[in-house]
Amino acid sequence: MLKRLLLPALCTLLMSLPVLAQPASIQRVNPTHWWTGMKNPNLQLMIYGPNAGSLTYTLSYPGVRLAKTHTVENPNYAFLDLVISPSAKPGTLRFTGKRGSQTLTQTFELKARDNSPKGQGVSAADFIYLAMPDRFANGDESNDKFADMADPNADRNNPFYRHGGDLAGAGERLNYLKDLGVTAIWFTPVLENNQPLTNEGGNMRSAYHGYGFTDHYAVDRRMGGNAAYKEFVRKAHAAGIKVVQDAVYNHCGINHWFLKDMPMKSWLHQWPTYTNTSYKYQPITDPHGAESDRRVTLDGWFVPFLPDLNQSNPFVSNFLIQHAIWSVEEFGVDAWRVDTYMYNDQPFMNRCNAALLEQYPAIHIFGESWVNNVVDQAYYTRNKIDFPFKSNQPGALDFVVYQAMLDALKTNFSWDDGVNKFYQALAQDAVYADPNKLVTFLDNHDTDRYLSVIGEDFDKYKIGMTWLLTTRGIPSMYYGTEILMKNFKNPSDAEVRRDFPGGFPGDKENKFEAAGRTDRENDAHLFVRKLATYRRDNPVMHTGKLMQFLPQDGTYVYFRYDGKKTVMVATNTSDKEISLDTARFAERMSGYTSARNVLTDATVSDLKLIKLPAKTAVVLELR
Amino acid sequence: MLKRLLLPALCTLLMSLPVLAQPASIQRVNPTHWWTGMKNPNLQLMIYGPNAGSLTYTLSYPGVRLAKTHTVENPNYAFLDLVISPSAKPGTLRFTGKRGSQTLTQTFELKARDNSPKGQGVSAADFIYLAMPDRFANGDESNDKFADMADPNADRNNPFYRHGGDLAGAGERLNYLKDLGVTAIWFTPVLENNQPLTNEGGNMRSAYHGYGFTDHYAVDRRMGGNAAYKEFVRKAHAAGIKVVQDAVYNHCGINHWFLKDMPMKSWLHQWPTYTNTSYKYQPITDPHGAESDRRVTLDGWFVPFLPDLNQSNPFVSNFLIQHAIWSVEEFGVDAWRVDTYMYNDQPFMNRCNAALLEQYPAIHIFGESWVNNVVDQAYYTRNKIDFPFKSNQPGALDFVVYQAMLDALKTNFSWDDGVNKFYQALAQDAVYADPNKLVTFLDNHDTDRYLSVIGEDFDKYKIGMTWLLTTRGIPSMYYGTEILMKNFKNPSDAEVRRDFPGGFPGDKENKFEAAGRTDRENDAHLFVRKLATYRRDNPVMHTGKLMQFLPQDGTYVYFRYDGKKTVMVATNTSDKEISLDTARFAERMSGYTSARNVLTDATVSDLKLIKLPAKTAVVLELR
Repeated sequence: MLKRLLLPALCTLLMSLPVLAQPASIQRVNPTHWWTGMKNPNLQLMIYGPNAGSLTYTLSYPGVRLAKTHTVENPNYAFLDLVISPSAKPGTLRFTGKRGSQTLTQTFELKARDNSPKGQGVSAADFIYLAMPDRFANGDESNDKFADMADPNADRNNPFYRHGGDLAGAGERLNYLKDLGVTAIWFTPVLENNQPLTNEGGNMRSAYHGYGFTDHYAVDRRMGGNAAYKEFVRKAHAAGIKVVQDAVYNHCGINHWFLKDMPMKSWLHQWPTYTNTSYKYQPITDPHGAESDRRVTLDGWFVPFLPDLNQSNPFVSNFLIQHAIWSVEEFGVDAWRVDTYMYNDQPFMNRCNAALLEQYPAIHIFGESWVNNVVDQAYYTRNKIDFPFKSNQPGALDFVVYQAMLDALKTNFSWDDGVNKFYQALAQDAVYADPNKLVTFLDNHDTDRYLSVIGEDFDKYKIGMTWLLTTRGIPSMYYGTEILMKNFKNPSDAEVRRDFPGGFPGDKENKFEAAGRTDRENDAHLFVRKLATYRRDNPVMHTGKLMQFLPQDGTYVYFRYDGKKTVMVATNTSDKEISLDTARFAERMSGYTSARNVLTDATVSDLKLIKLPAKTAVVLELR
Repeated sequence: MLKRLLLPALCTLLMSLPVLAQPASIQRVNPTHWWTGMKNPNLQLMIYGPNAGSLTYTLSYPGVRLAKTHTVENPNYAFLDLVISPSAKPGTLRFTGKRGSQTLTQTFELKARDNSPKGQGVSAADFIYLAMPDRFANGDESNDKFADMADPNADRNNPFYRHGGDLAGAGERLNYLKDLGVTAIWFTPVLENNQPLTNEGGNMRSAYHGYGFTDHYAVDRRMGGNAAYKEFVRKAHAAGIKVVQDAVYNHCGINHWFLKDMPMKSWLHQWPTYTNTSYKYQPITDPHGAESDRRVTLDGWFVPFLPDLNQSNPFVSNFLIQHAIWSVEEFGVDAWRVDTYMYNDQPFMNRCNAALLEQYPAIHIFGESWVNNVVDQAYYTRNKIDFPFKSNQPGALDFVVYQAMLDALKTNFSWDDGVNKFYQALAQDAVYADPNKLVTFLDNHDTDRYLSVIGEDFDKYKIGMTWLLTTRGIPSMYYGTEILMKNFKNPSDAEVRRDFPGGFPGDKENKFEAAGRTDRENDAHLFVRKLATYRRDNPVMHTGKLMQFLPQDGTYVYFRYDGKKTVMVATNTSDKEISLDTARFAERMSGYTSARNVLTDATVSDLKLIKLPAKTAVVLELR
C-alpha cells in the first residue's frame, strides 16, 4: 500500500519544481487562527498553495513580528515564524506576499481568549467514560455520510462502515453519563478521517475509529464538524463533565492533505521498502538494545495507511504541538489521551507535553503504552528510575494494572496467581512519581470486552468493577461495560465496538433507560452508579492514601484513608464464604467499631469478624 | 517447636539473676581472635561465662584501649569495646576481670595479617560452581559423624542424614573443577550446624545443608573443622579457584550456643506466639504496604528451628559484621553469597556490606532475593530506582533471569513467550547500577534441577547452558549439572541434592572421570567445559558489552563485543532449521566476513545467511 499511495506523493513533491511559472496562491494556513495573550509568544504558520513558498512575506501589525520565513524543498509551502508580543491586540493580520510583479494578501485571525473552562485536567477525583462516537449515539442523521468523502458509505449492518454516531448524539446522553457518576468523557478521535475503506488481503481497514487524521484543523463532518465539537464541550462542561481528547502524534491518515504534496521528504519517516513498526517496546528501554531495532519500533509505520510522522523534523514538531494547544484553546479540551505513546519520538513528546503544561498547568496527559511490566510503563511517565531519558508525561494508561486485574479474576489463587496478580502490580508503584495519576481500566476499544474476558461471570464483574472504582488512579470505563456489553475481538475489532443500544434512530431497545435494560443490566448499571457516585462524592477515594495487605487464602484487603475517613475494601475471590478475621488490619482499623456497607447501605456492627460471601468485594466506610 | 525450644532459653535468661553468688568464669570469647592493621580500629568482644558480666574488666596493652564495657540483661555476658590503634603490635592481650575479691585473666590473640589472597572478589570473568559439601565428595571418613553431636548419624541411604562429604573431599576435586573451567567455588555453609534431625509433622528437618549455625567461629567438624577449611581455601587459591562463602545473617540454628542462654531478650525477634515469615517480599518495596506485613516478612522466623536474629540490636549487628570480616581474614574467602537477603534488616545489610567493602574493596557480595520481577530484585542491589532505601550490595543472585531462561526453554515462541522471556528479562536491565555484577544460574540447591525442568531435553540443555555462559553477569552452575544430574524436589529437597557419583568411597561409578561417564554425560561435560574455558580465556565475555536484537520466529541473536572482539550468539529455538538472514545485525557484524564456531572450531565462511539447525545455539567469534 505504501508503494501505491506514498510514492506517488513523493513524486509529486519532486515534480513540483518545474511548475514554478504558475502564479502563487494560498489555499491553507495552519493553524487556522490563534489568540493573543498566550504564554508562548512564538507561532509558526504553515502556508500552503501553489508556489506559496516562492512569495516574500511581510507583515505590519502592532505587537506581531514576522521573524523569519522558511522555504523548504517543496515550493508550495512557506513556514512563517511569528512573534506575538504580550501587547498585541486581537484583530486580523494581513500578510503581504510578493513574487516579482505578483502581490497577494492573506489574512489571519488573532482572537481574544475567552473565559470558558479549558485544560481543567482529570485526576483521581474523576471517572472517565471512553466512547467511540460513531458507535455511541446518532443525534443528526443528516451527517451520517457524505458523497464527497473517501468513504461515502454509512451502514449499521456492516461492522466496517460508519454507523452514524456523532457529537450531537453524545451530547444528548450527557445526563445519562452524569447520572451514572461519570465526570469526564474521552472520545476516540473526532478529527477528520477522510480515509477510504480498504481491503488489505481480506482485512478490512476502516477509519470510523478516527485514528487517521486527514486534516488536523477539522473535526470530521460526520461527527458534526468543529461547531458540533465546540457545542458538545460547552454542554459537557455545563453538566460538570470534562472532555478528554485523543491525540495522535505518531502518524496521520495516508489521505492527509499535506501528504498529497509533502513539504519535504523528511516530513515522514521514509524507508527504502515499506517497513512496519515491530510494535515492540523493549528496544527503547533496553540498555542492550540495538539502534536498528529502535528505529523500526519508532520510525516503522503503524500500518500502511497510517504513515509515520517525523517528529524530529522541527516543522512537523511545531505543527503537532501548536495543534495540541490550538485544540485546547479552541474547543476547551481538559485532558489529552495520547495514542501509541511509545512509538513517538520521546524528546518530541516531552516538548509537546511541556508546551501544553506551560499554557495549561492543570491539564492532564496520559498516553497509551501497552506494555507488560512496570519498568517499561514507568519509562513513559514521570518516574523514579534513572533512565537515560526522563519522561515528563504526568500520567499514563495503566496497562500493567489492567492486565493484573484481569489475571486476578481469571486465575485461581496461589502463591503468585489469582488476586496476588493485582496486589503485586500495585506493590511495584515505587517506580512512579505519582501512581495516582495513572488511568486504570478493565477494557477499551482495542481489547476484548471485560465481561467476556472474565467468562461472563457477574460476580467477577462486580469484583473487578469494585477494584477499578476504589483503588488508586483515575478510573476509566469503556462505553457499554455498565450495561454488560460483551464480545471478543474475533473476528474483528468491530465486535467490541458495537452500537450502544438506544443510541440510534429506530433502535428497538434503549439501554440508556432503565426500562430498556434487563434486570441484570440494571443490576450492573446500578452497581457502577453506586460506586462511581460514592467515589465522586468522597475525597478519600481521590486523594486518600492506599494501604494494601498481603492477600491470604483468596482474600485481599485494602484501605483508602485520609485524616477524615477510612474506607475498607475487602475481596473474597474464593468459592466459599469466609469469616475474615480483621486483627491483622489493626493499623487501619483500630478505633473503628462499625461500618456502613457502601453498596447496600447496611450497617456492619461487628468489625472483628467480617462475613465475606463467596466471590464478593465489599466496600465499608468505617465509623 | 518455638515453644518447646525457645521459651526455655528465655526462662534461663530470666532465671540467671539468682545465681550471681557463684564465682565468675569465662567460657567463650567471640571473635576468637583478631588482627592488627585492620581498617576499622573498633572491635567488640562478646565475653560469655557464668557471671562474666559482673566482672570489671581492665586491659593494659600498647595501642589497644578498652573503651567501654557493656553489661546486658543476662549477667553471663559482657561486651567489651576495644579500640586498636594502627600502632598496635601483634601479641596476646590479657584482660583482667575483677569482682569483689575474685580476679581472673582472659587472654585474646591479636595476630599479624598474612599476605595470602583474600577478598579477591568474583566478577563476570568467573564461573562459579555451587556445591553442597555433604553431598559432593568425602575425603575423610573419620569425620563423617560424631556421637557427641545433636545429630550423631551418617547414612548415605537416608536422604535426610549426613552423607559424609567434606572439605577434604572437595579439595581433591579442585583439579576436576579447574579442568572444567570453573574459577570459583561456592559451598552451601560449612559452619557448625550442631542441630538435631527432627520430624515436623512428617517433614524431616535436617541440617546437612548448613543453614543453621550453632557456632559462628567453628567450621563443622564433619566438614573437617577450621583447619580443613583453611587448607581448602589455600589449595583452591593455588589452583586459581576463588572461594565464595555462604553467609546466613538472618537466622541461626536453634541449637546455637548463645541461644541456650541468650544475652538479652532482644537478641532474637520474639513474638507473642510463634510467627513464621510470610516469605513475601512485596510488603518491603510496596509504597502501599502495611507495617504489620513488613514485620512478619522481616521478623517472622524462617522456620521454627532457625530463630530470627534481631539485627537492629547493635550487639547482634556487631557480632555478625565482625564475624564476616573475621571469616575473610581468617580463611581467605573471596566473596559472599548471602542467604535470604530480603528477610534481613536492610540497614544492617548495608552496614555489613560497607564494613566488608571497607576492609576488602575487591570483594563481591551477592544475596539471595527470590523474586519474580526486576523492581524487587533491583531493591536489593545497587540500582537506579529512587527507592526510599538505597541498597549498597554490589551484586545479587539473578532470580529474574533464572526464571526467564527456564520459561524461554519451556514455552513456545509467541509475542511474549518462548525466548522472548529471556530477551525481555535482560531488556529491563536499566534498573541496575551494573547488571554484569548479578550472578546468573539455571538451578541451585533449592530448585528443581535444570535438566528435569526442561523435560530432559538435551538440545534445550545446551541452549540454556550457552545462554548462561555467554550472556551478561557472573555465571554459576549447580554441582552435577555438568554430568546431567536431574530430579525434581519431590518428595523432598534431598532429591536435588544427591551425591556426586564418584565422590564417596565405594562408589561404583566415578563421574569425575570421563571413563565413568556415559557418552551423553561426556557430551554435556565437554560442552560445559568448552564454553566455560572459552569464556574464561576471552575478556570480551567478561567485560564486553552485550547487544541483543529482537527475537523473531523463534530465533534470538545477541553479541558480546569490545574494541578487540565480537562474539555472536545465535539461537534457534524452533523445531525447524532456519537460514538466518543477518542483514539486520549489521550494527555489530559489518566489517566481518567469516567466523569461528567456538563449539566446533569450524569456520563459517559466509556470514550473510547462517544455517541454524533446529533447537541449537551457536557461538561465533567473528573475524
